[in-house]
Amino acid sequence: MNSNAQSSDDLRSAKPLTHAQVFEYNQPLTLKHGGQLPHVQVTYETYGTLNASRSNAIMLCHALSGDSHVAQHDPTDDPGWWDLAVGPGKIIDTNEYFVICSNVLGGCRGTTGPNSINPQTNQPYGQDFPIVTIEDMVDVQKLLVEHLGIEKLFAVIGGSLGGMQTLCWATRYPDSLHAAGVLASAPRLSAQGIAFDVVARNAILRDPHFHNGQYYDKAYKPDVGLALARMLGHITYLSPKAMHDKFERDKLAPRDVATDFEKKFSVGSYLAYQGDKFVERFDANSYLTISMAMDMFDMGAERDQLEKAFADTTCRWLILSFTSDWLFPSSQSREMTDALICQGKCVSFCNITSDAGHDAFLLANDLDRYGGMLRAFLDTTTTTGTFIPAQPLPEDQPSEHRYDLEQLIGLVDEGKSVLDLGCSRGSLLTRLAHERHSDHLVGVDLDEYKIQLTMQRGFDVVQGNLEEGLPDFQDKQFDYVVLSLTLQGIVHTEAIVEEMLRVGKRCIVSYPNFAYHKLRKMLFEEGRSPGAEGGILSYDWYNTPNRRFLSILDWQIFCAERNITIHRHLFLNNEQHQIVSNDPNLNADMAICVFSR
Amino acid sequence: MNSNAQSSDDLRSAKPLTHAQVFEYNQPLTLKHGGQLPHVQVTYETYGTLNASRSNAIMLCHALSGDSHVAQHDPTDDPGWWDLAVGPGKIIDTNEYFVICSNVLGGCRGTTGPNSINPQTNQPYGQDFPIVTIEDMVDVQKLLVEHLGIEKLFAVIGGSLGGMQTLCWATRYPDSLHAAGVLASAPRLSAQGIAFDVVARNAILRDPHFHNGQYYDKAYKPDVGLALARMLGHITYLSPKAMHDKFERDKLAPRDVATDFEKKFSVGSYLAYQGDKFVERFDANSYLTISMAMDMFDMGAERDQLEKAFADTTCRWLILSFTSDWLFPSSQSREMTDALICQGKCVSFCNITSDAGHDAFLLANDLDRYGGMLRAFLDTTTTTGTFIPAQPLPEDQPSEHRYDLEQLIGLVDEGKSVLDLGCSRGSLLTRLAHERHSDHLVGVDLDEYKIQLTMQRGFDVVQGNLEEGLPDFQDKQFDYVVLSLTLQGIVHTEAIVEEMLRVGKRCIVSYPNFAYHKLRKMLFEEGRSPGAEGGILSYDWYNTPNRRFLSILDWQIFCAERNITIHRHLFLNNEQHQIVSNDPNLNADMAICVFSR
Repeated sequence: MNSNAQSSDDLRSAKPLTHAQVFEYNQPLTLKHGGQLPHVQVTYETYGTLNASRSNAIMLCHALSGDSHVAQHDPTDDPGWWDLAVGPGKIIDTNEYFVICSNVLGGCRGTTGPNSINPQTNQPYGQDFPIVTIEDMVDVQKLLVEHLGIEKLFAVIGGSLGGMQTLCWATRYPDSLHAAGVLASAPRLSAQGIAFDVVARNAILRDPHFHNGQYYDKAYKPDVGLALARMLGHITYLSPKAMHDKFERDKLAPRDVATDFEKKFSVGSYLAYQGDKFVERFDANSYLTISMAMDMFDMGAERDQLEKAFADTTCRWLILSFTSDWLFPSSQSREMTDALICQGKCVSFCNITSDAGHDAFLLANDLDRYGGMLRAFLDTTTTTGTFIPAQPLPEDQPSEHRYDLEQLIGLVDEGKSVLDLGCSRGSLLTRLAHERHSDHLVGVDLDEYKIQLTMQRGFDVVQGNLEEGLPDFQDKQFDYVVLSLTLQGIVHTEAIVEEMLRVGKRCIVSYPNFAYHKLRKMLFEEGRSPGAEGGILSYDWYNTPNRRFLSILDWQIFCAERNITIHRHLFLNNEQHQIVSNDPNLNADMAICVFSR
Repeated sequence: MNSNAQSSDDLRSAKPLTHAQVFEYNQPLTLKHGGQLPHVQVTYETYGTLNASRSNAIMLCHALSGDSHVAQHDPTDDPGWWDLAVGPGKIIDTNEYFVICSNVLGGCRGTTGPNSINPQTNQPYGQDFPIVTIEDMVDVQKLLVEHLGIEKLFAVIGGSLGGMQTLCWATRYPDSLHAAGVLASAPRLSAQGIAFDVVARNAILRDPHFHNGQYYDKAYKPDVGLALARMLGHITYLSPKAMHDKFERDKLAPRDVATDFEKKFSVGSYLAYQGDKFVERFDANSYLTISMAMDMFDMGAERDQLEKAFADTTCRWLILSFTSDWLFPSSQSREMTDALICQGKCVSFCNITSDAGHDAFLLANDLDRYGGMLRAFLDTTTTTGTFIPAQPLPEDQPSEHRYDLEQLIGLVDEGKSVLDLGCSRGSLLTRLAHERHSDHLVGVDLDEYKIQLTMQRGFDVVQGNLEEGLPDFQDKQFDYVVLSLTLQGIVHTEAIVEEMLRVGKRCIVSYPNFAYHKLRKMLFEEGRSPGAEGGILSYDWYNTPNRRFLSILDWQIFCAERNITIHRHLFLNNEQHQIVSNDPNLNADMAICVFSR
């Protein structure tokens, strides 16, 4: 990891947007909070080519201090804020997609904002600029998209503020996009997040050069307040570890920057530099306008409010958060995912392990994962639904043909929905799709790499720790909930079985039988902890991933004690690829059980 | 938990300190960074009575915005900042101890600071006040303590900035205190912590009313800057969860406070109120002086620097952190603990589970634990060493007389040092102290309640998760490292055994034998997962805390494969309270092994 990586956002300059285009909307626009704008100008940039069916357009939504310049248009062009991800052959492949990014309403980079001329006064709006919401920003983007002759976007994608816009697109214009990618965002800012914004706004509002927002013709602007706001923002965009890695080595050796701010510590000189640089390219009134829009954005604090907000959405969803993002904590992405799942929407979610903080989605550090998942998401989304590539993926061949999987698949009825707990690389889901024509297939796994592989196969995957149950899922949401050869590795056995019973109409577990004669003999005759050669039992007592050592009889008693009905119980000798009918508790090394309550 | 609890610090007023006493030090004082003060005035308060031997004095060190008024002197007195913990019969019992608290050097509550008159100019010092360090603050406290005729303090205790002072006391004047209690503190501020201070100071320094610090005779003071600093501070003192609990319900219904700051959100009105109130009682120059002292405090970033800093300390230590404190993260308390342990110092450490953030040590929420541990620490520290009460504690009687413990104790030589992993309530340590006259006894446990009980018995306990090894401890630091009936519950078996071998000259494990004939028969004859009535094996397969199912033979092979020498191997039938010599792997239900490499 390059801990010194700067956010691409740090590279933004005040230079003109040389590739910008302008769309003039010459009708009055009424905003959500009642304000009116007599007309709106939208400045935007595009990348790639709109195809003949106008079906390959992706709207990218920028963050607080970003702008329409997502990426370089050519090698001589200024760097963009997401050159990492957007371009020919890149994650958002401009050979394939037509990418649009417009400057937000209320900003200061060419779309109507507080620094625009108010036709009623012939002065800049300043604080007379009406209150703008995320919804208003998206309404203006929608006008642009219509102006471009696009009926339905292939996708809307954004991080942070851009993620809020994406949420708004999907809920406000559900029929206008096939896919929504929400990175490092939230359905509402936390109290802590609002608190930081309050301090930042107060620094601007109480700057003596603010002059109630009409500073445009003054010698001095509220630069100190705006710089303080930016400094504070920068702290919240970085993780504590990223700050440590960046500033501890030369803690007392500040960089030599020309500034009137304190620069006693290396982190101080960095903040001073960032603050000073920001005032050259940003407008304090826009900062106030946009940060207030973020603070007011609120899809609801309660689960049922969120569910209601998502009820009419029709797009496929990708929600990504980052473990060290404390400004938009992953719990909020999880809440959105849960609400979407409960509404039966197609959604993948992963909380990506990262040291990079909120800025992670702009940095190279974790691009292999957030970019990889975003690409898998786009690659397997089509305008007609989800695309599931032909199985198997080459790297999975050995496990694809496991005898126990074949038997398990045979127990699943045709055309049903299946939730696969511990989906690993998606082998079982792939076979169910092809062999059982299953209708709605979702995977759960903890491992980021496996989630990405399963997503590449076209499935929705929700990151989850089975030890914590299945809080995302609704009662009887799936025809089948499957737990394949994992029961014996879970500590909270009773909890996961109860959760399976709650979420699935039918449940299937496969598990090793520790009363298999070879294992019995090992303990009885040799006096050693049971192990066996080959397969999942070939571990020593001190390194086996198994935590629970059950027999077929144990499982039967367990079910009987809990009023669990066993519909099918298939006993296997997995070594010999045979079904066992004679004294299975002695002769079977594995069992597959279909049950419900 | 009362999530609406306010920090006592919120209750501070600008009222005169009616019980304050003044000590005038009428000699020049040279400060660490070279500055000079021609004389120093120290304002302080005391509680309780100094005993005849002058051995019961506790110095309490206040936090950034605290003062000498720790507690009410009588029911008519103003509230103090730690009334919760200090008073007759309370955790720091003023019937027993003589408590001293002085206002810090550089502050604004009566001890010499930037608002004091500079005798050279007859004006307040302002920014001419010399740079003050934590060391200077402690030097002045030391002068006060000498003035009071106290040669050696019983204890120095402090949280946050007060914790830094405590660290300084112990390292700078190692012979002047018996005990040091460091709460929610650190050997240096994190880069993130310094960054927040930088923004806060910049808000003050760039306030147009700051006038380079000479604002005392002006109509306006840098109140906006100081209030912004305070708002920012408040955010960092609270946990995200505490903010959520406090402000989410009435998010859009701000309290009606009279303020010129933004008050659109409930959290905004709170911050505005705190900011406005703070400027009534605090001086901006003092804020700059003290926050810079905190930022400069640095005992070293590297482990060896920390160890060196602690090398000459002689006091007993209690280090407490709080899980939700993100300003002084627990990792920093852990680093200090590790360095102290490596230097062979007596130290207890616990990271207390709390939602209250950095302010936790001032609040009632977690008083039962941080207060309970502080009390246990003071109760069992004496001026001649550690006091170990007579065993057993009533609630521990049943387990005190366990047969296997008796056998284990018999394997420990007299007068040796012992580290007990998973010390639980301290039963084994207590018996070792009384029966084996062990010299240095330390416990490790994860559970806060058990840590507190073991501390009450006079032992040092370091919170630790055995799955993460023993990173705190040095090679061969103990004569014995004991793991009693816990090996089978640990997942990382090899790692913990290697760690025991590293830290202990000899190691002792006791473990259940899963090849005991009753268990063998259960699997072999009944085909059920081994369990047994009574004792640690009386669980079902799905709820046993055991994760590893080893036999005596398994353990012997494990040791042989790793060149581990077994010195003694005692085989027990714990049911019958007998030593087993005939075919122990069949007839013993438990074994105790003394080993080394």
